[in-house]
Amino acid sequence: MKIAVDAMGGDNAPKAIVEGVMLAKKDFPDIEFLLFGKESAIKEYVTDDKNITIIHTDEKIESDDEPVKAIRRKKQSSMVLAAQAVKEKQADALFSAGNTGALLAAGLFVVGRIKQVERPGLMTTMPVFTGGKGAGFDFIDMGANADNKPEHLLTYGILASYYASQVRGVKNPRVGLLNNGTEDTKGSELTKKAFELLKEEPSLNFVGNVEARDLFNGVADVVVTDGFTGNAVLKSIEGTAQAIMSNLKSSILDSGLKGKMGALLLKDSLKELKQKMDYSNHGGAVLFGVKAPVVKTHGSTGPDAVRHTIRQIHTMLEKDVVNNLVAYFDEHQA
Amino acid sequence: MKIAVDAMGGDNAPKAIVEGVMLAKKDFPDIEFLLFGKESAIKEYVTDDKNITIIHTDEKIESDDEPVKAIRRKKQSSMVLAAQAVKEKQADALFSAGNTGALLAAGLFVVGRIKQVERPGLMTTMPVFTGGKGAGFDFIDMGANADNKPEHLLTYGILASYYASQVRGVKNPRVGLLNNGTEDTKGSELTKKAFELLKEEPSLNFVGNVEARDLFNGVADVVVTDGFTGNAVLKSIEGTAQAIMSNLKSSILDSGLKGKMGALLLKDSLKELKQKMDYSNHGGAVLFGVKAPVVKTHGSTGPDAVRHTIRQIHTMLEKDVVNNLVAYFDEHQA
Repeated sequence: MKIAVDAMGGDNAPKAIVEGVMLAKKDFPDIEFLLFGKESAIKEYVTDDKNITIIHTDEKIESDDEPVKAIRRKKQSSMVLAAQAVKEKQADALFSAGNTGALLAAGLFVVGRIKQVERPGLMTTMPVFTGGKGAGFDFIDMGANADNKPEHLLTYGILASYYASQVRGVKNPRVGLLNNGTEDTKGSELTKKAFELLKEEPSLNFVGNVEARDLFNGVADVVVTDGFTGNAVLKSIEGTAQAIMSNLKSSILDSGLKGKMGALLLKDSLKELKQKMDYSNHGGAVLFGVKAPVVKTHGSTGPDAVRHTIRQIHTMLEKDVVNNLVAYFDEHQA
Repeated sequence: MKIAVDAMGGDNAPKAIVEGVMLAKKDFPDIEFLLFGKESAIKEYVTDDKNITIIHTDEKIESDDEPVKAIRRKKQSSMVLAAQAVKEKQADALFSAGNTGALLAAGLFVVGRIKQVERPGLMTTMPVFTGGKGAGFDFIDMGANADNKPEHLLTYGILASYYASQVRGVKNPRVGLLNNGTEDTKGSELTKKAFELLKEEPSLNFVGNVEARDLFNGVADVVVTDGFTGNAVLKSIEGTAQAIMSNLKSSILDSGLKGKMGALLLKDSLKELKQKMDYSNHGGAVLFGVKAPVVKTHGSTGPDAVRHTIRQIHTMLEKDVVNNLVAYFDEHQA
């Protein structure tokens, strides 16, 4: 099991990335890591070089690089070299905390899509607040595409349902379609057609339409949407959470000693809330529909999130998720 | 100035509605109110009957009635009779806290759209956290339509920009297009075309693409989107806020005396936050593009929100918003 790691991607690279790899190495001695990036910088954080190979390069993709251009022009960047290693089967999966758009492009154009999936989608596991620890739902497409057809949404349902059952261990995952109302007849042209396709797919436990306001209540284990809406929903969630937290903070700071004492007493509760909302303990976002696991964590990620993401990739490889899905599509769409 | 009020719409009707009308009456002695609903129930809360006319009816539309059917079949419902009064020019505006879908249908099919607006949109003023008191942005279409064309988004920009300047008093309102990235080249087929139309419209101060995560930071005074995305964004915001607040609450309750003391000390801060997030002090949601102001407040609304919404309707009537927009469209699309 070999994972190609873009050691230079993300705000805290290579420190957070390499430290995370060191943590993951202890959990999974069966993984070999190929670390792409500046050798001297990486080496600083390698505390044990068993199963570690460093492939040196000076070039890297910046967070504000134009994605497709960056992939085409920065052929020696840590991300492109890592993707290339996956393409050439020197590694089984690609991991990066760098420029999301560039990683999507690297997944599509370097690793390559599997022929049965017309439009790979980006999927992440989001937290659910009503369930037990670790409860969540798989949300796809969260923004790999700007436009999707109904058929893509059916494919996303199949991909994410497989992931939920095989990687997260959810039995018979409930698949919901994000829509503008819960009634069966609701929807846009796109979602009305997608509803019919999802309903008719015998391999899915389709539970119908779900609304964005109920996502955190555990209405489904998989939520399918087009990439434009998925992107808007995810950014709305992020923006709202951030606005509430920063306002609560400034309101506390403005309220003098009383507020500060209150905040001190509530520290544990606020910390618990933050942890619940943090979905990085489910791992990173998967570009689903390409020939190998291509997984992204947040740019501001720390070593723990890297470790969780490597655990996630380990499970995906162990269960041979990509090859099983290829076999599934071959069987069902022949 | 006459406002037709559906006194039976909303969870707390007719109490909250009539009490709100009583408050608004003091602010605006120039408004005459036509209250539609069960006379005996309404009268209970009428503390002063000057400028109040009650039009009795026993029928009402329930919150779970199928909207279009309800409007067609419940011809004697308080909502339909109120809409009818506007249609027949016995009233200048329609107000309801009832079934949103039914009110949209009543607006479209009873009050009627103005011929220059192909697809009326639902607009609300959302709070901005960085600005001073009362800062906000006008968000349109928040869900009147399931599918929109680029031309509709241009119309929404014009409608909401006019509203922001005339009703909210924002000088030269900045109009943003909700998109999946801030770069000019970003977007779906729909938003790319809408971007061009908005950019070329000389009457608008178009500031380009905005992302959902920045809405609360005041990136624009008007944010334009299609009804499907608008609905998803709004419900994501609602769901996230609710999930955070209810989790904070349960985390506090679980943390024993310490947590409860902390919460007590933070009471003012939490209250302040809640007030900031509450957008009902900007008034209700306007169905824009019909022949008279048709305005909706939340079903769970209290008397204060009713009062704010009536103030909003008063301003819309005072500024003659609908007729001025008709004149504008006649001039520019002749």
